[in-house]
Amino acid sequence: MGKTKQPKPIDLARKPRGFPDKRENLIHAEQDMIEKITGVYRRWGFEGLETGAFEYADALGKFLPDDDRPNAGVFALQDDDEQWMSLRYDLTAPLARFAAENWQTLPKPFRRYAAGPVWRNEKPGPGRFREFLQCDADTVGAAGAHADAEMIAMAAEAMRAAGAANGEFTIRVNTRRLLNAVLETVGASEDSTRLTILRALDKLDKFGVSGVADLLGAGRMDESGDFTKGAGLDAAGVKQVLAFAEAGRSTRSETLEALGQAVGTGEEAAAGLAELDAIARGLEALGAPESDVTIDPSVVRGLEYYTGPVFEAELLKETVDEDGNTVRIGSVGGGGRYDDLVARFTGEKIPATGFSVGVSRLAAAFSISGVIGELNGPVVVLNMDREDPSEALKLATELRSTGIRAEAYMGSSGMRPQMKYADRRGAPAVIMVGSDELEKGVVTIKDLKEGARQAAAIASNEEYREARPGQFEAPRADMIARIQAILEADQ
Amino acid sequence: MGKTKQPKPIDLARKPRGFPDKRENLIHAEQDMIEKITGVYRRWGFEGLETGAFEYADALGKFLPDDDRPNAGVFALQDDDEQWMSLRYDLTAPLARFAAENWQTLPKPFRRYAAGPVWRNEKPGPGRFREFLQCDADTVGAAGAHADAEMIAMAAEAMRAAGAANGEFTIRVNTRRLLNAVLETVGASEDSTRLTILRALDKLDKFGVSGVADLLGAGRMDESGDFTKGAGLDAAGVKQVLAFAEAGRSTRSETLEALGQAVGTGEEAAAGLAELDAIARGLEALGAPESDVTIDPSVVRGLEYYTGPVFEAELLKETVDEDGNTVRIGSVGGGGRYDDLVARFTGEKIPATGFSVGVSRLAAAFSISGVIGELNGPVVVLNMDREDPSEALKLATELRSTGIRAEAYMGSSGMRPQMKYADRRGAPAVIMVGSDELEKGVVTIKDLKEGARQAAAIASNEEYREARPGQFEAPRADMIARIQAILEADQ
Repeated sequence: MGKTKQPKPIDLARKPRGFPDKRENLIHAEQDMIEKITGVYRRWGFEGLETGAFEYADALGKFLPDDDRPNAGVFALQDDDEQWMSLRYDLTAPLARFAAENWQTLPKPFRRYAAGPVWRNEKPGPGRFREFLQCDADTVGAAGAHADAEMIAMAAEAMRAAGAANGEFTIRVNTRRLLNAVLETVGASEDSTRLTILRALDKLDKFGVSGVADLLGAGRMDESGDFTKGAGLDAAGVKQVLAFAEAGRSTRSETLEALGQAVGTGEEAAAGLAELDAIARGLEALGAPESDVTIDPSVVRGLEYYTGPVFEAELLKETVDEDGNTVRIGSVGGGGRYDDLVARFTGEKIPATGFSVGVSRLAAAFSISGVIGELNGPVVVLNMDREDPSEALKLATELRSTGIRAEAYMGSSGMRPQMKYADRRGAPAVIMVGSDELEKGVVTIKDLKEGARQAAAIASNEEYREARPGQFEAPRADMIARIQAILEADQ
Repeated sequence: MGKTKQPKPIDLARKPRGFPDKRENLIHAEQDMIEKITGVYRRWGFEGLETGAFEYADALGKFLPDDDRPNAGVFALQDDDEQWMSLRYDLTAPLARFAAENWQTLPKPFRRYAAGPVWRNEKPGPGRFREFLQCDADTVGAAGAHADAEMIAMAAEAMRAAGAANGEFTIRVNTRRLLNAVLETVGASEDSTRLTILRALDKLDKFGVSGVADLLGAGRMDESGDFTKGAGLDAAGVKQVLAFAEAGRSTRSETLEALGQAVGTGEEAAAGLAELDAIARGLEALGAPESDVTIDPSVVRGLEYYTGPVFEAELLKETVDEDGNTVRIGSVGGGGRYDDLVARFTGEKIPATGFSVGVSRLAAAFSISGVIGELNGPVVVLNMDREDPSEALKLATELRSTGIRAEAYMGSSGMRPQMKYADRRGAPAVIMVGSDELEKGVVTIKDLKEGARQAAAIASNEEYREARPGQFEAPRADMIARIQAILEADQ
């Protein structure tokens, strides 16, 4: 207690991979996005519900997308009483636990939204984190296709609220039932074959039709010579699956018609078509434009708990990053119907549907494409009298009292580091009050942006010191007005 | 994939203790509080920085308050590469890691705010969670007392912004140096004795002067007969420590004077007094009222990394909970100077000071005292035609397009459950459009609050059905205006 520990210079200052440190602009962008998206969810009648970071491992279940690495998954630890707890890997599985636990007292259907971090114990990489933000809406206890249609139309509105313009995104809709019907038709009965086919479909964007045809058939050789074994379908089977996956047309009704021909006449096919048809009618009633929502048979969605309709929100716009590379973000959210997830707990079937925006991913996309602006720094009052900082504190207080973002310099360094500090903070202006100014009843203000503009035209250091670009004296009583004028000019 | 799993009715729907599920009103209260507090931090010039949930265990260090249970502490697990990672137990230790890791490129001093959950692997209990929200501000790289004064004055402004009125809270200030000086004076050199003394001081509120005197001396017997061993000070020592702890006066300058007499003339005492004196002058310059900030020698603060000034934000108001019990919340935040925490990483001393609001605790306090209001539910459009919900979807869409919070009923139940649903959601109104209404070009609206008022005066069920309290027909074109009138009347 209180005894000062000797500093030990050890190489401790490192963070675990996949857990990003977030600075001002990104935090602001993500928060702003969450506010706007939850604002949409709320306007559509959903209520807030947030669960804790941990769930019992058996309550969470294992529904993460199958992956080539078997140890991919969750962060888990044992509690004091030896029970295994896991950090949530999404917001849906904990909702299912909550709904089951509280079903008797909840309004039915139970409609909730939530925003928060989720954790996946996966291999981190560029743009691939082990902790990221999701923002979800779910309707639990609603079997009708209009509940799915609502999710889809609302997802489009959420994307627009988050900052995607018309034509920059689309919500793609499919149903697991049609996928199942096609898998049956081509005789894919083994789980592993079915999985290989679904994964192949998921790569249409990446490998194109001929690459996916290879993956559906014998296999595909990539440029490096690596061979990926295919699903082993014969030529007719490959053709049939591709005809299905390529049945997307420019309007929802045309796609439904094309699908009618591609999926055959089995029971599951009919059920799937009826499902999509009902969703399409719901979308019509909800006024969702064709450009917002397309029916796209190639949508698969990885999570295993989906039982019917699945949806995916995709950013269409290609963006160019700082290094000039073209970046295609693709999926930034998704969802679907999960009619059996709550039944794991209750035994009783409680149908549910939901949608999740990948906030971190979407914010990263907008950050790459420059949609996210830089925030202004505070006005910095330099501390001229390091023995007694009172004057600087008073001035900063006065500025803040009128709502201006302002601070007194808090370090113990001289003028040059103080100016450097203001510069690094992106301060619009600094204020200086030394003994001269105090005596004359004035403040010296430096408009940093105007100063930078003027300085660009100045050739030598001597001239710069002489000209003091952007710097002027003002009566103390005019300080607020002069600073406000600078802030307004900056906007 | 896609094969429906049979529901297994197992008792899985339970959550780990200490991780609360949060409903609408609480989420809203906490978010609102975070927005207001970070708004204050931003206006004072701080910038956003948020770190991940995990840190390497050795980077976090062990600075949690000593506790009688040695296994109290953090949630930790081993990463793929066998390194131990811990969930952060506060927002300060990760900041120290970040500052050390990025010191070269940061503005100096580095001033940041953050809000987010922290996790403590402690025994959960009523109002005691293992996951809770904190909202912090820190200045790293500032040795001066004015940086502490700023934290303290800003803390008061944050409390007010969060909803505490004048006189309902105070920020209490002390310094570890004075505590150390007194411990030296009474000859408490052993760590365990010092700790017992500090813990005793921390209980002044709870046990009063005589109880604390017992704890400083031989020990204290509580009502149940349990005996707590004391620090073993002699009568003179007890008197000296109590004289120090009781030196608080009604103004900061009077307290400083009283302290001058209570702590003696040693080097550490003089340094501590000078520190508090400089802080008091800073508070003066920052315009912090006496009622906002008091100097209180009994403030201890548990975290071990504090090296100088310590502060505590306390709610003074006693509140009465739903069951009529008087609840005294006490501490809802705190902070202090931690000059050695960054040096653990860099070897170089980088002085720092910070403050943390316990958002979950503060929101719970306001929730108990009824400061947090109930949010209104959505307008619910009942679904009269369960074969084709299109009409209900259209009406809900129309309402939302004018900004009204509205939803179509999404379940598949009849009218009574639909009305019950609207009631449970706290809907201000429901809208009904059946075939009659469609034909006549009208909607039926039920004002649920007005209906409840009228229903209170109705004696029988028959009369109720006859009167249809709060229910009226309106031309479809007037729907928006009539609903808006109901919403305005509700406010």
